[in-house]
Amino acid sequence: MNMLVDGEWRTDAYQATNEDGEFDRDETSFRDWIQDDPDAEFPADSGRYHVYISRACPWAHRVAMTRRLKGLEDDISLSIVEPVRYDDGWEFSEEYPDPLYGEPYLRDVYTRADPEFTGRVTVPVLWDKERETIVNNESREIMRMLDTEFEGPDGVDLWPEGYREDVDAAIDDIYETINNGVYRAGFADAQEAYENAVEDLFDALGHWEEVLDDRRFLVGDVLTEADVAMFATLIRFDHVYHTHFKCNRQAIHEYPNLWNYTKDLYQIPGIAETVNVDHITRHYYMSHADLNPKRLVPTGPDIDFSAPHNRDRLPADLPPALRADATAADD
Amino acid sequence: MNMLVDGEWRTDAYQATNEDGEFDRDETSFRDWIQDDPDAEFPADSGRYHVYISRACPWAHRVAMTRRLKGLEDDISLSIVEPVRYDDGWEFSEEYPDPLYGEPYLRDVYTRADPEFTGRVTVPVLWDKERETIVNNESREIMRMLDTEFEGPDGVDLWPEGYREDVDAAIDDIYETINNGVYRAGFADAQEAYENAVEDLFDALGHWEEVLDDRRFLVGDVLTEADVAMFATLIRFDHVYHTHFKCNRQAIHEYPNLWNYTKDLYQIPGIAETVNVDHITRHYYMSHADLNPKRLVPTGPDIDFSAPHNRDRLPADLPPALRADATAADD
Repeated sequence: MNMLVDGEWRTDAYQATNEDGEFDRDETSFRDWIQDDPDAEFPADSGRYHVYISRACPWAHRVAMTRRLKGLEDDISLSIVEPVRYDDGWEFSEEYPDPLYGEPYLRDVYTRADPEFTGRVTVPVLWDKERETIVNNESREIMRMLDTEFEGPDGVDLWPEGYREDVDAAIDDIYETINNGVYRAGFADAQEAYENAVEDLFDALGHWEEVLDDRRFLVGDVLTEADVAMFATLIRFDHVYHTHFKCNRQAIHEYPNLWNYTKDLYQIPGIAETVNVDHITRHYYMSHADLNPKRLVPTGPDIDFSAPHNRDRLPADLPPALRADATAADD
Repeated sequence: MNMLVDGEWRTDAYQATNEDGEFDRDETSFRDWIQDDPDAEFPADSGRYHVYISRACPWAHRVAMTRRLKGLEDDISLSIVEPVRYDDGWEFSEEYPDPLYGEPYLRDVYTRADPEFTGRVTVPVLWDKERETIVNNESREIMRMLDTEFEGPDGVDLWPEGYREDVDAAIDDIYETINNGVYRAGFADAQEAYENAVEDLFDALGHWEEVLDDRRFLVGDVLTEADVAMFATLIRFDHVYHTHFKCNRQAIHEYPNLWNYTKDLYQIPGIAETVNVDHITRHYYMSHADLNPKRLVPTGPDIDFSAPHNRDRLPADLPPALRADATAADD
């Protein structure tokens, strides 16, 4: 990727590693909050907000999934950027235009919010169409806002009372080891940094493989934001992280519980439509020339997210809209 | 790799692809034959020949395996080059010296044989210590010579009467699709060339997976040169070709028959000692900067070639020295 640094567009400032070759992810820049309060600076009004996402990006995927699980499609508009990122960063195209301003690049949306913006131009972006600025570009916070500040038509609550501490602990727990862990492995510049990241990653996957042996979801029988965060990484793992980021000790489809869990979530109504394997694979393999100079995109692996899973054996407390037979029942 | 071109050492002349981005492997250069005939130009005398190999290279592995299966360790000396190949090509080191001349690079052995040598400096090299020249550097031919022109103490014959046409057909069949197929995928410069190679490769693997369902070895119940050629690719597949060459549609350990077949061969007495996973992984990941610029070496996959296999259910006609319990019986 690339950054705006003092108004200059720099293509060499991303994937920054420290002196030990370890990947350090920079903090995101916009951290305001939508609130379910008409007097708030950013009130939770239907139709007021827009999210810019990439179908490739796992951080953006959290937001697209939350929006869909909550049934907020009519309340928050969404648009998609081109999957492959070249020297100018995330860009719009005829197929994936900027629906608000017709800008050519996502960086133009950032400088529209702040002409003095300095930092990484990332997705997701939560945009306020009324004040014409970025509310927030931190995926975990946008996920939480959509979840807690908007009601949604189906009564879906991904941060339910009684589980909140566990959800937050799980999100914390999987962030460094799994969600960012694959990046720590893939963007490492030194063998030891890579090996440490891979060890943390597979230790954590082994832990959750065990947890999921008698638990339908990460914190119990309820689907939560922690599952959204976990799914965004697992669904990309075998196609991208395993090969491109060299996280090849084991594939997710070789873990009985993690693999069935991934398929279980994929088969929740609406989730499959948030997954675009073509965008995912083309993005990673074609955007990181420093990892894959020839930009060839692998054709594997041969796996099927729609295949049967055995997770029905475990109790689940899901609202009707999120049950796998919900779509069929509507027919 | 790199080549000697008109006496000049060129580092840019290997991995040549044609205008469609397809990898074209050059012909090898030295094609003389050892013969089991005292009057031959190169008679099959014990102690006269040396083979230079790399533990990393599948072509060299054919020769090391044949020498070991035939029990020719006392007849033909062998030395190993450094696994990682930098700008000067295959090189010797303190740990892996040139035992004959103390040369620093393998190219020096080539120019010792032919001061005007022009071409790729590859392993294996079959060297005549008496005439001080290269007899042959084509792995298939060296494998055949060691097999048919030397007797060996154990009566091992890898090109047995009654199977010879089938063996040659199998070697032909797996060469372009599998042995060289992984290179056609990995060294492709264009998406279509890569995809064609991968399709040929997995079609062929699928074919042999079926064949091995009721056949212990590629041509029947006898171990042959075809199995040697196949094994040299399969043993490297999951560690290297799957990830580094993007042959990630399926891993060998996900094919029941191919995987058990690989373990079966690995467990033949002496074969495990010809396999060096450290040399294999370091060679590929660190030598091809155009595929893996950071030269990081993956730690996966987590597989065990010594694990049980189910191939004993199929009939095998193996000489006693090659039976898996032979080593144990010697204790």
